[in-house]
This record gives sequence, structure tokens and C-alpha cells, in this order.
Amino acid sequence: MVRGQGVTAPLGFRAAGMAAGIKASGRPDLALVFNEGPEYAAAGVFTRNKIKAAPVLWSQQVLTSGRLRAVVLNSGGANACTGPDGFTDTHRTAEAVAAALSNWGTETGAGEVAVCSTGLIGDRLPMDTLLPGVDAIVKDMGGGLSGGTDAAHAIMTTDTVPKQVAVHHPAGWNVGGMAKGAGMLAPSLATMLVVLTTDAAVDAPALDATLRAATARTFDRLDVDGSCSTNDTVLLLASGASEIVPDPDEFAAAVLTACDDLADQLMADAEGVTKRIRITVSGAASEDDAVAAARTVARDSLVKTALFGSDPNWGRVVAAVGMAPVALDVDRLTVAFDGTEVYRATTGVPGAREVDLSGADIALTIDLGVGDAAATIRTTDLSHGYVEENSAYSS
Amino acid sequence: MVRGQGVTAPLGFRAAGMAAGIKASGRPDLALVFNEGPEYAAAGVFTRNKIKAAPVLWSQQVLTSGRLRAVVLNSGGANACTGPDGFTDTHRTAEAVAAALSNWGTETGAGEVAVCSTGLIGDRLPMDTLLPGVDAIVKDMGGGLSGGTDAAHAIMTTDTVPKQVAVHHPAGWNVGGMAKGAGMLAPSLATMLVVLTTDAAVDAPALDATLRAATARTFDRLDVDGSCSTNDTVLLLASGASEIVPDPDEFAAAVLTACDDLADQLMADAEGVTKRIRITVSGAASEDDAVAAARTVARDSLVKTALFGSDPNWGRVVAAVGMAPVALDVDRLTVAFDGTEVYRATTGVPGAREVDLSGADIALTIDLGVGDAAATIRTTDLSHGYVEENSAYSS
Repeated sequence: MVRGQGVTAPLGFRAAGMAAGIKASGRPDLALVFNEGPEYAAAGVFTRNKIKAAPVLWSQQVLTSGRLRAVVLNSGGANACTGPDGFTDTHRTAEAVAAALSNWGTETGAGEVAVCSTGLIGDRLPMDTLLPGVDAIVKDMGGGLSGGTDAAHAIMTTDTVPKQVAVHHPAGWNVGGMAKGAGMLAPSLATMLVVLTTDAAVDAPALDATLRAATARTFDRLDVDGSCSTNDTVLLLASGASEIVPDPDEFAAAVLTACDDLADQLMADAEGVTKRIRITVSGAASEDDAVAAARTVARDSLVKTALFGSDPNWGRVVAAVGMAPVALDVDRLTVAFDGTEVYRATTGVPGAREVDLSGADIALTIDLGVGDAAATIRTTDLSHGYVEENSAYSS
Repeated sequence: MVRGQGVTAPLGFRAAGMAAGIKASGRPDLALVFNEGPEYAAAGVFTRNKIKAAPVLWSQQVLTSGRLRAVVLNSGGANACTGPDGFTDTHRTAEAVAAALSNWGTETGAGEVAVCSTGLIGDRLPMDTLLPGVDAIVKDMGGGLSGGTDAAHAIMTTDTVPKQVAVHHPAGWNVGGMAKGAGMLAPSLATMLVVLTTDAAVDAPALDATLRAATARTFDRLDVDGSCSTNDTVLLLASGASEIVPDPDEFAAAVLTACDDLADQLMADAEGVTKRIRITVSGAASEDDAVAAARTVARDSLVKTALFGSDPNWGRVVAAVGMAPVALDVDRLTVAFDGTEVYRATTGVPGAREVDLSGADIALTIDLGVGDAAATIRTTDLSHGYVEENSAYSS
């Protein structure tokens, strides 16, 4: 795997990022991903929150066609909970992108443009700044290596580094992507936006199935704080520019690899993170049970604060998994930190309190003792940094 | 309502508290509540965690008889996840209490003694210290005002103040109680132990029904961090010493008042709390929906950190309630802080970001816009103090 150019790694994609003046800080805040074709198949997965931001409502509607020419993304404002006026703003943004692309020589309709926004909930976007920015970014859009990187920078909010990925298949097709955020597709600390691109020739229904399978095993299993954004969006665009129809399993594997790599980068850059924690639940009656149990532990504040303190407090892990809505065998339940078993046969293993958890990566393994299914959830610790960053965000 | 003597406020109860040497600090760590009769009816409500501490397993078994002579409680160790040996320790503790009471002149069996423990999960109790302590506490046990207060002190762990309540009914019967912990009956930050007493003449089935109804509306709606202890226990003992059979509704109201008052004290003393937050959800399709929605918001780390920062970030509240597994009308949803509406008709109300939340008490009100049911959950903010206290607990 080679990282670097992100969404412009596959053939047939251009991208750009710029400071349009949406953020008061003057940092980059507007990004564009443009599919030059010859194909325009696309799929999307969106937040499960009942409260959906205007750009989510818009992009869901647009994607019913299974076709996208472009994605415009802004940081500096979520355009969520902004009422009918906020939806009009999203609509106008898509129309402005379509008009600028049409002027530029590519006849485009607003219904071929997805919109993604991230930032504070509740404020209207500064359209007098954003719309001229859309004109400018279409003019600036390049096809070189830097386009993807500029776009990845422009969607950052509390991210400290841009996140990009590129997967090159020996057969000649590629998958690229960029991401921002510090959370997961449903639960999210900050909004997660992901744009994936491929030059493989894949139709929209296949893209949709592939994307759903990949997000279910990657972004959906990244759980920073159990919260969930109104704006979470993952898009996958296919240009067909390689003129290669990939083997479906190999394509699914490449998309999964790209999503997994981006999920790893999101975890590593989560707000206030000092520990990267992988919670694996095995011995479950079903994979759903394994996910549910691992998620329950991943959301337990007492487990997360203990791990922030490098404290092998296995009692909190046992107490947390005991609340998971899954089948478990109390007598066969086991817990291990970094491969060292600390709990077995209803009690602690001698030396369990001496396990060294001072490193930045922690593997927590729990066996429920009732079946053969397993799953892993990525999470982070609950630190002073998390409290600091999130107690002083809007004001 | 008069506070002060707690479990010894009703006639027919003695109590004591002492330092038995279980805690390394030398602080009080052993308490006894003794029912002098003439009746011994009792009921209990226990943790819903699948992983139950030895004293919970023991006390559940004992209470199938609907009868208790005494409750022995220790802090300094939870006796949870301690295997079959831990259960033997609990059994031996109950036997020691029964033997000491029998020596003291009250013929008692171990099956009439409930046991409660709180402290770190996973360590065996120091039985060579605890058993002599049981002998001593039975000898020391007084019937005066100080007995209840001493017991309330001896069950404290991270509590900063003892929690007691007394409700005196004009008809001449009383309800008293003590509590420790900083959480709720299911979710709990630290183990919650509550012992309630009454001198009213009430049989065990009526006590059970009354206690379940009261805990469901009080301790079950106190949610500090969504975690849940292996040891949570609420007991209600009736001596019948007033020789008055109370009106059932008035008795239920008195027990509810006692539980509500103790829940309020638990919230105010929760670990790291700087804000006391009451989340009321109205306009719900059912009371269960109202509780579920309020609980979802109460567990949202982004809402809790914002309130720690006195930040009226209503967008996080809307995002949190949007993830609740309940029916809501997106267009009719409203949010208010301290009675000031901040969100209505899918967008923010002008001035919403200027609401002053700098005080220690915050009332958050959410109307789902679909029905007539309502419920309130008590919670706290997520502060640096919470992280500090919980990242350095066992080690």
C-alpha cells in the first residue's frame, strides 16, 4: 500500500482544497473532488442519526441515482439544525458547483453533486464567502498529486493531520481515499467525512454493496465516545478510467483495506487520545454479539479512564462486559491485556495487576465462552485532553 | 423531612460503624444494621450486571425468605470476581454476624443476615481482620442517634459526605435510610449501597413491590457515567415497631421520598461533579421512551463535557437525542436550557448561544413532539476531576 495522493491516486479524478474564508482562522476550509469519467457510478453510506444535517439529506437524495460527477466539502460549519434555509444553502452550493463545472466545460447538473459539511452544529454557512469560493476552487482544480492532499487538508477540523490512503492493485486499477474526523460512522467524536475513489469499472449497485460491507467492518467498529454526528458521510466514486472490470472479491478487499487504513488513522488522531485500544471479543454466540460486547466495553468511561492511567483494572472490564446485552458464560469468561490473561474461572490471575500498560497501544481480549464468533472494536482512552478539547469547542 | 439519624430514625433499629482494618487508610470500613423486631420483613433490589459479586449472590439467596435480622456492610473491598473462595468469605461473614448476635442474646441464623461489600473488584477480603471486626461491632452496637451516622460513615468509599434520610409520617411511623456511591442502581460510577428501614408494619411482598416502584423512579434514573457495578444493592427492612399498618399509598410515597432524597445526595456527591444536571424529556410516546431518550443524552460524553464547560451547545443535545432508540418528530423537537428555549422548528432560537450555564444546577428539557409522556434523569458533567479520580483508582 502506498499513501500520499489520496482521492487523486486513481485515474480520472481531480481534486482541490483552498481557504475560502469559512473558517475564522483563515485555514483551508473548502475541498472539491471531481470525477472526469468516463463513468460516474457512485454510492454512499450516511449517519444513522435521526437528526440529519442538510448536506446529508441532499446527498442521500442525489445518490438515489447512483451517479456523481463531483463532491464539494466544507469545514468550518456543519450546516446541521439550520432549518429549511440551511437546506437551501446546500442546494445553492451544489448548483454553484454544477454551474462552475459547466462553465469550465463539463456539463453538470446540481443533482450530480454531493455536498458534505463539518463543523459546529446550528450556524448558517457564510454563503457570501462560500459561493465565490466554489467558483475559485473549480478554476484552481488540478489533476496532479497535490490536488488530493490539498483536499484532505481542507476538510480537517480538530484533526491534527490529514488522512489519505491509496491501494494499487497489480491488475492496474486503484482505490484512493481521504478522511477527516475522530470518530465512527455512527458514533463519532467529530463528524467523519470519507471520500473514496476508484478507477476500476464498477457499477453503482456493486459499489453500494461493497461500500456497505467495508464500512460495517471498519468505520462502524471505530468507537471513540459513543456519540454520533448529524453529518457522517462515506462516499465511493468510480471513474472507470482504468477500463478494467475488477474481480469482485479483489475489489471488495481493496475497498476494505482502504477503509481499514483510514479507520486506523482516524483512531490514532482522535481528540485527546493517548492510547490506541483494540478490544477483541471472542467466544461469542454470533458476530453481532461480539460487536455489541466489544462496543459496550469501548464505551465504558471507567474502563477508558483506567486505560488512560495505564491501569490494568480488569475488574472494570469484567463489570462492563457484564452489562453487554449478549450471552456469556460467567464461569468461562476470560480477559487478557496484551496477550497476558488477567481473569479466568471467575477470579483474577496472580500477577494480573502487574501487567505493564504504559505503551500507547493496548490489545484487550475478552472471551465470552459460549461460541465461536469474534469481532474487534477500535477505541481510545478517556483523557484530560478529551475533556479539555470538548468542554471548550463552541464558545 | 428531617435528616440525621438515617437507618436508626425508625423504631426498632440499631446500627454501628467502625474501623475494622479492612481499609489500609484506617478509616471506618465496617457497618451493621440490626432489626430488633418484633417483625423482620425485608426486600431487596440488586444490580442488573450479569457479573454479580459474592455478597450480591448471597443476599439475593437470603432474601428469597423475605426476612432479615441484620445487614453487615463493608467498604475497602467489593469481594467481586473472587471466585468460589470469595463466596465462602461472604458466607463466613454472615455466619460470624449470626454467631455474635446469638451470643449477644438474639438467636440468629446466617440466612437472616444480608451482606454488602464495596471497593476494588478482584481482591479477597482480609478475613483475619474482618471476622474479629464483626465480633467487635456487634458488641459496640448502640441504639442511639449516633449508630446510624456511624454506619453511614463506614460504608463510604470515594464519597466525600455520608448520605442519610429520615421521613416521619404524622401517623407515627417512620422511614429512614443511608446510601453510599456516586451512581445509579444499574449504571453506577462506584457501587451504590442503600439500606432503608421502617418501623411500619408491612409484610415482605408489599415491601418488595414498594421498593421496586421507588427504585425504578429514583436510583434507576440517576446516571453518572453509564457504568454498572457488580455490587449495587438496595435493601428495605421493616421492624413493625411502631405497631402501625400504614396506608399503602402513603407508605409508597414515603419510601419514594426517601429514595429520591438519597438519589439527590448521591448526584451531588458524584465523583468529579461540578454540575448537577436534570434532563427532562417530555412529549414522548411512552414513559419508557422518555427515560430512554433522557438516558441517551445523559450518557453522551460530548453533552457532558460541554456542560462542564458551561457551554450551551444545544447542537450536541439535538445530535444525542437523535440517536435515542425512540420515536421523535424531527420538525417538532424542542430543546431548552433552564427554561430558555434554544432549539425549535429544526433550527436554533436567536440568542441560544448566550444562555448562562455557569451555575452548578442545570435543567435540560427536551420535547420529542410525539406524545404526552415525560421522565427525568439526573446526571452530572464529565470533568477533569472525573478523569483524574478514575484514572488512578486501583493502582
